[in-house]
Amino acid sequence: MNRPIVRHAPIVPGVPHLLHGGDYNPDQWRASKETTWKEDMRLARLAGINTLSVGIFAWAALEPEEGRYEFGWLDEILDLMAENEITAVLATPTGARPGWMSRAYPEVLRVNRDRTRNRHGGRHNHCLTSPVYREKTTAVNTALAERYKDHPALGLWHLSNEYGGECHCDLCQERFREYLKTRFASLEELNEAWWTAFWAKTYGDWSHIESPSEHGRGEQDIHGLQLEWMRFTTEQFVDFYEHETAPLKAITPDVPRTTNLMGTYPGIDYFRLAQALDVVSWDSYPEWTGTEKDAAKGARASFLHDLTRSLKGKPFMLMESSPSATNWRPVAKLHRPGVHLLQSLQAVAHGSDTVQYFQFRKGRGGSEKFHGAVVDHEGTERTRVFQDVAEVGARLAELDGVVGTDTPAEVAVVYDWHLRWALEDQKGMLQGRTDYEGAVVAHYRAFWEQGVPTDVIDSSLIASPGHLDRYKVLVAPMLYMLRPGVAEAIDAFVRRGGTFVATYATGYVDEHDRTFLGGFPGPLRETLGIWAEEIDALYPEDRNAIEWDGTAYEAVELCELIHAETAETLGAYGSDFYAGRPALTVNRRGEGRAYFIAARTGDDFLADFYGRLVAETGVERALDADLPPGVTAQVRTDGTTDFVFVLNFTPAAVSVEAGGETVDLAPFGNAVVERPRAH
Amino acid sequence: MNRPIVRHAPIVPGVPHLLHGGDYNPDQWRASKETTWKEDMRLARLAGINTLSVGIFAWAALEPEEGRYEFGWLDEILDLMAENEITAVLATPTGARPGWMSRAYPEVLRVNRDRTRNRHGGRHNHCLTSPVYREKTTAVNTALAERYKDHPALGLWHLSNEYGGECHCDLCQERFREYLKTRFASLEELNEAWWTAFWAKTYGDWSHIESPSEHGRGEQDIHGLQLEWMRFTTEQFVDFYEHETAPLKAITPDVPRTTNLMGTYPGIDYFRLAQALDVVSWDSYPEWTGTEKDAAKGARASFLHDLTRSLKGKPFMLMESSPSATNWRPVAKLHRPGVHLLQSLQAVAHGSDTVQYFQFRKGRGGSEKFHGAVVDHEGTERTRVFQDVAEVGARLAELDGVVGTDTPAEVAVVYDWHLRWALEDQKGMLQGRTDYEGAVVAHYRAFWEQGVPTDVIDSSLIASPGHLDRYKVLVAPMLYMLRPGVAEAIDAFVRRGGTFVATYATGYVDEHDRTFLGGFPGPLRETLGIWAEEIDALYPEDRNAIEWDGTAYEAVELCELIHAETAETLGAYGSDFYAGRPALTVNRRGEGRAYFIAARTGDDFLADFYGRLVAETGVERALDADLPPGVTAQVRTDGTTDFVFVLNFTPAAVSVEAGGETVDLAPFGNAVVERPRAH
Amino acid sequence: MNRPIVRHAPIVPGVPHLLHGGDYNPDQWRASKETTWKEDMRLARLAGINTLSVGIFAWAALEPEEGRYEFGWLDEILDLMAENEITAVLATPTGARPGWMSRAYPEVLRVNRDRTRNRHGGRHNHCLTSPVYREKTTAVNTALAERYKDHPALGLWHLSNEYGGECHCDLCQERFREYLKTRFASLEELNEAWWTAFWAKTYGDWSHIESPSEHGRGEQDIHGLQLEWMRFTTEQFVDFYEHETAPLKAITPDVPRTTNLMGTYPGIDYFRLAQALDVVSWDSYPEWTGTEKDAAKGARASFLHDLTRSLKGKPFMLMESSPSATNWRPVAKLHRPGVHLLQSLQAVAHGSDTVQYFQFRKGRGGSEKFHGAVVDHEGTERTRVFQDVAEVGARLAELDGVVGTDTPAEVAVVYDWHLRWALEDQKGMLQGRTDYEGAVVAHYRAFWEQGVPTDVIDSSLIASPGHLDRYKVLVAPMLYMLRPGVAEAIDAFVRRGGTFVATYATGYVDEHDRTFLGGFPGPLRETLGIWAEEIDALYPEDRNAIEWDGTAYEAVELCELIHAETAETLGAYGSDFYAGRPALTVNRRGEGRAYFIAARTGDDFLADFYGRLVAETGVERALDADLPPGVTAQVRTDGTTDFVFVLNFTPAAVSVEAGGETVDLAPFGNAVVERPRAH
Repeated sequence: MNRPIVRHAPIVPGVPHLLHGGDYNPDQWRASKETTWKEDMRLARLAGINTLSVGIFAWAALEPEEGRYEFGWLDEILDLMAENEITAVLATPTGARPGWMSRAYPEVLRVNRDRTRNRHGGRHNHCLTSPVYREKTTAVNTALAERYKDHPALGLWHLSNEYGGECHCDLCQERFREYLKTRFASLEELNEAWWTAFWAKTYGDWSHIESPSEHGRGEQDIHGLQLEWMRFTTEQFVDFYEHETAPLKAITPDVPRTTNLMGTYPGIDYFRLAQALDVVSWDSYPEWTGTEKDAAKGARASFLHDLTRSLKGKPFMLMESSPSATNWRPVAKLHRPGVHLLQSLQAVAHGSDTVQYFQFRKGRGGSEKFHGAVVDHEGTERTRVFQDVAEVGARLAELDGVVGTDTPAEVAVVYDWHLRWALEDQKGMLQGRTDYEGAVVAHYRAFWEQGVPTDVIDSSLIASPGHLDRYKVLVAPMLYMLRPGVAEAIDAFVRRGGTFVATYATGYVDEHDRTFLGGFPGPLRETLGIWAEEIDALYPEDRNAIEWDGTAYEAVELCELIHAETAETLGAYGSDFYAGRPALTVNRRGEGRAYFIAARTGDDFLADFYGRLVAETGVERALDADLPPGVTAQVRTDGTTDFVFVLNFTPAAVSVEAGGETVDLAPFGNAVVERPRAH
Repeated sequence: MNRPIVRHAPIVPGVPHLLHGGDYNPDQWRASKETTWKEDMRLARLAGINTLSVGIFAWAALEPEEGRYEFGWLDEILDLMAENEITAVLATPTGARPGWMSRAYPEVLRVNRDRTRNRHGGRHNHCLTSPVYREKTTAVNTALAERYKDHPALGLWHLSNEYGGECHCDLCQERFREYLKTRFASLEELNEAWWTAFWAKTYGDWSHIESPSEHGRGEQDIHGLQLEWMRFTTEQFVDFYEHETAPLKAITPDVPRTTNLMGTYPGIDYFRLAQALDVVSWDSYPEWTGTEKDAAKGARASFLHDLTRSLKGKPFMLMESSPSATNWRPVAKLHRPGVHLLQSLQAVAHGSDTVQYFQFRKGRGGSEKFHGAVVDHEGTERTRVFQDVAEVGARLAELDGVVGTDTPAEVAVVYDWHLRWALEDQKGMLQGRTDYEGAVVAHYRAFWEQGVPTDVIDSSLIASPGHLDRYKVLVAPMLYMLRPGVAEAIDAFVRRGGTFVATYATGYVDEHDRTFLGGFPGPLRETLGIWAEEIDALYPEDRNAIEWDGTAYEAVELCELIHAETAETLGAYGSDFYAGRPALTVNRRGEGRAYFIAARTGDDFLADFYGRLVAETGVERALDADLPPGVTAQVRTDGTTDFVFVLNFTPAAVSVEAGGETVDLAPFGNAVVERPRAH
Repeated sequence: MNRPIVRHAPIVPGVPHLLHGGDYNPDQWRASKETTWKEDMRLARLAGINTLSVGIFAWAALEPEEGRYEFGWLDEILDLMAENEITAVLATPTGARPGWMSRAYPEVLRVNRDRTRNRHGGRHNHCLTSPVYREKTTAVNTALAERYKDHPALGLWHLSNEYGGECHCDLCQERFREYLKTRFASLEELNEAWWTAFWAKTYGDWSHIESPSEHGRGEQDIHGLQLEWMRFTTEQFVDFYEHETAPLKAITPDVPRTTNLMGTYPGIDYFRLAQALDVVSWDSYPEWTGTEKDAAKGARASFLHDLTRSLKGKPFMLMESSPSATNWRPVAKLHRPGVHLLQSLQAVAHGSDTVQYFQFRKGRGGSEKFHGAVVDHEGTERTRVFQDVAEVGARLAELDGVVGTDTPAEVAVVYDWHLRWALEDQKGMLQGRTDYEGAVVAHYRAFWEQGVPTDVIDSSLIASPGHLDRYKVLVAPMLYMLRPGVAEAIDAFVRRGGTFVATYATGYVDEHDRTFLGGFPGPLRETLGIWAEEIDALYPEDRNAIEWDGTAYEAVELCELIHAETAETLGAYGSDFYAGRPALTVNRRGEGRAYFIAARTGDDFLADFYGRLVAETGVERALDADLPPGVTAQVRTDGTTDFVFVLNFTPAAVSVEAGGETVDLAPFGNAVVERPRAH
């Protein structure tokens, strides 16, 4: 490790346990509260639950008429929770509005891309700029904080719920223009950055700029505008979050605050938003199938956990997960035996200090009434799902030592929101099918299958002074956009001895989505020692190959036609008119190496390539063992003790040999091994 | 039979024949009426046609300017029909409006879910609440009735055409709120019924309630609102029908009235609408292929005929069918030889006392100009289609004895609109792919293949006092919603000796789409003797099995994980983590039995299961014979004579052995056998 | 040949070379013009480029504020071009508007079918009726023409860009009504022509007529209205084109004018629009795959070239093509070696006197930044694509003799916009899948594979007095609509000795989309000697066969059931209930013959059928040789010398034996052979 191991404080001050619990909506059960609420407490304790999240979407219950608050029911439930030693994750209710507000103040309603104003309904249907909405938010959040600031149950603030969407109202348009003036010194600079001479789109006045819209065609053809709109939307959420938290911060300065994220949700740059959060939390809903396919799904879920942890580089919260079926999936499959425990420990393995659910008790109505829950409509502890949850509760209770431990990653894989916005918006290659996330996960998975702890970082972290120093290996699939400072940081990383891996579609555009001139991969051309002249797109039925070290690995989708300049050619294309031309290269530069993979490959190539790379670079693995396919090992450590989680995402029983010992894993089984830290 | 056989009166008083004819639009041929209209009469008689439906969509011809009526052309054509002994089915013209009305009174134009008001055009593009539209309707209907009340051709009123759609205008919104006040005693009751605490949707005032809309997101998440909107829409049609019929009823009390329905059209609860009709009529357009697939299509067509007959439990009208291609199908295939006669007799076999077409003479323009018709653009009797129609005319003329006869069904299959609305709206299981109708038809088909007369009923009939007494077997696939009284009626039916069959997805929600608490199948838990703990959804490629009596039958889509409580386990799951758990049970209760099939199966299981059930229960079959696959037999009876229709929906010639006799059927062939009634 | 060979003048007066060049957007590079523009000139000359198109989409650069023109940059670039002997194709900038115009005059913004007004953005987003837009167009075009009327670089006017779309604003509605009054003498005549009695659509006043709209349902059900709307839209473009050209014509009467078309773009009848153009130009973007599939794609590209040439019956311009990938294709595949030269010579082979590209230098931003271009972002001449372009430049420079030569076609295939509008709008047969263009191209390809020069003409040319005299063979697949004079001209053509081939779906409707009465194919019934009684539509998996001369050829999609009246039956159906009935007939009439193919067949039947027909009729072929599949030969001639282009659209090397000589062709290779003209 190039950096010291850190032991973090527990997420909720004074609660040195892994948290176990979930969303709880007692407000839906007020009619039967005498029996139901009490029974809820009994069942929660039975399931080993020590936290419940309350008040999400409760605005209509808390403020049934403008200015008239009803806190009685919440007082009662928080008292009950305190009595039962259950920590409250208390939500601000801003994820949905009461009807009276939409009626009285239509400005709070969101405006769509096509400039129609939404009607009341749904969630997240509000304008983030609206002064009225901000005022009402401050009022209800202040009232909540004042009332419960000293309540013994209060452990953490849960701001709103799953921020998302965007608003195109006139207030937001004006705010967008103000934002743009902070980004561009003049309209000329903006026109040049956005290349607006194309199709006569040159702006003659700031007031002519509007947010993108499919309706009316064409503004979406200015890619720079699209990019800035996405950046602006992220800033809107950051700003609104800070607005929401202001009274909480003032009144309860010691209670940490979060809002629950959603993995790679494309609408917000989470690396930016995370800067504003005290702790990162997220909602994880893998689509388990109970078949061999779950190996891939497990790898992706791990990727998302690692991404979420890397946002702030410290333990996070699994704020929501399903104890059984996920109702909104096209096929709402049940969890197979073992799967619930597996997914729960997986989160912890990757740095979560909580396992929380949506939700504790199933509602009788509404669109989520068939979502898995701890307590079913049936209402007792005798269900299979309840028993699965109780098993998780018992296991978590044994793992207090894990709280606050570190993840010793020496490898970083790059995932970048701005890049994704530009790449998915570009017209060329495989239009709308560039599969950026899939490519990143494929590279990530090659480490996951070897049990290598991995961070997932973005351009802002790459360019952050010193950040790359902690890594030995940096992998950046499809690094299409090079934001300022990124190429320089990578080059320095390589020259100092790092190992860098890049692929096709690297170094095409700058932060404004303008192509680099002079040859791709633009500012990384010297680092990688190649010139990418053309990129060939393959039809779904087309195949090429990368021939490397005696093996022909299938190449699909995109094959870049490169020239090795200072790089050495390791592998070549197998067919078509560019057969024999370089497809895999390495450039030795300073103390390090920069690899280039010119085509999209299958997992077989990545497994072999990264297998060698891990061996060569000597990066830390959780277990010194050959892991069966679909089985990963992940480690958390306090510097003295390692907690190794061995997780089997296959429907077969498997054994892992490690250090002379055998770990047997049931189908979808797991093992947690404690050992002294060797490194 | 548990009830006496009934002989009904002919549909048109004084016309003791099966009616044969169809839609006729002489108003499109006014320019050439001297030749065309006369030729029409000659051709109609040649084809054995004794009825024609006139005036559908004729409003612009009848009232070309506001308040100025032109009846002359209709006088002429009705006189011609009377001369030629052709009964007129006379339509009110309200299926489409003249342009002047949309111009002068925009309120008559329908408003869509997204709250945009339609422009003029199409059909059924009017608001049912609009006072103007109602006033104009009354005026034109009154004028029609007054003018033709004593016309000798007038036989039946045909109201409008294929009622459908819905309107979301402000007038309808207000009317919807009035309707809701008749359904819920208070806003609190409504909030509790619709579980509006979910996502802060609690209504603070009646005026906040609006019809569902995708635009604006979210109101559609209140399932109770969706349900009441569909119920309201049905009531709107009932009310509008009654409004339309009022002058007809007053002026021509002895002329029966109908409007043509459309099978399982999802927008209107036809069991409710049928209460308002004097006679039920419908438009049947099976998608024949000329291949083995027609067995399935034949079964479905029969299901729809039986459903339509069951709406009022007496003979109905086949108001429209195609004598050849159906132009709006993606593939407008010609009828193979025999098919036209087959589909015509099929309707009669299931209780229709008419065979009518869209249309008599093909129009030269408009979107239906290539729809099959009796008289083609060519214009003579020498076409194959004309000859097919004439053959039907000749056969029907031999079947006067069938008029008004009864269908001796001892089996009822349940099909319920309210249930379907809720089931298709629910989010869980197989979202949007629950295939309720397909499941019902699959169970129905098992009886159809055995030639068992079957009614198709809904919850309103189940809960109707005494209604179930007539049946020996009641089959309710996916009885997801239990409306008030249904569980009680079924339980009484079983205890009295009935045989009840239920399946997975039974007893989940009440009439407001709120789940039952305490364990599914809710109020039917004791009747069925099981507890359904969980339901597993299968991916399209997944398979399980029900192992029953030595055979493993494929199970797909949904597998419910049940516990046999008082029930006996007959069959078990074949694989996955619930292998060996009950999949087929029977609960003996009182004098009867209640079966439960826990998974979606193929036709093989249903054939074997219902084969035994029919034998055990001894329900009446039309023929005591093993029918080849794709061949059905159906019976109508006056209590003395049975008319047995043997219908071959396969492209192969087949023979049926029945009572020592052999019936030979050509490909798509038929036979009608008269015999004394034995039962 | 029935007509004399013609030698046409060069397209640009005084430039007796094939033009080579493309779209050029120096306005996007003004920031770096000192280096970039000069380098552009050097690179253009290096690539053998002698023309560049400038000013397309330059309105914002030419008129940055209302009324303030900036011509300086254009002065400079035209001067540079003149210095470098590069002919300017100078564009009017009306393809897209500056933002100030949309702001100041919202009437210029287009209104969609759903009656929403577009926002600013995109291209072709203007109302063609708008007086403001017309005034601004006149002003800028006048300023351009005045400024550059004597500029030595000016060679040709390029009006706007790829005219398309339609506008439904109130101004256009009014203009549409005026247009209709020129088409119909009275509202009664219109009502009768449009068959509006159907569904009560009879118009009571001219003011009630509106353009079609899906929104509001139903106006689209009046097929005659749809047809006239398409005709009106075509007339709008013709009228706007003439409006745009008026100042150019007045100021620079000797500079020819064109606008670039798009093959079979369905929104405009190009036969009508071409009447207004001085020279026809078009943009060709075949979707090459590099596989055997390119034979079919090559045939279709040739069809489009022949269609474009036939619009005016003289050499045309390939105004745009891609020198490499086409970025907006779902898969932006690179050109394989040879393909760029092949597609360029293909255009010339079919009558193009230019090879032009989109575009010369790749832009850095905007939605087309990854479209193939002569000069890549890399910026030098060393790219593969640049070398491909330079090769084309060199080859074209050797072909001055081709300029203005004729295409000696004795065969015409019919492709008709009005027919297509009606056929694709009709509801019946295979709704929305009638594949008119595919059927026409399939018949065309049978000639293409034999190297037979072919014109592609529409009904207006058929009915044009004397036009058919030049042909020996006329092929009209799916001649669904017979516009006035067409049947008469075809019958005269046959009686005079011509060979006519028709197929299923012929002679159904008149110019107003009203079916013919008395039997199909309507007015062609005597010419063809058949009566088409019915048409059977086949499911995708269905197959029938045409049995002809010992071979059973597959029949799919549509099988017409015909009666041979005076015709002789050559082939019969192979199966289904119409097995043995006529499927291929010939009617001898006067000196000629009229064939009828009753079903959609595969290419095998068409190859055999037209193989015999070509032999029997002795029509001219480019080479007297058996061409391998996927290889065509095309000829241009000045009457003395033939230029024969042999083109290989397959990925295999092939040899062609012709007149004792062997022509060897590389994969995707070509040969151009000069020979004395024999005919």
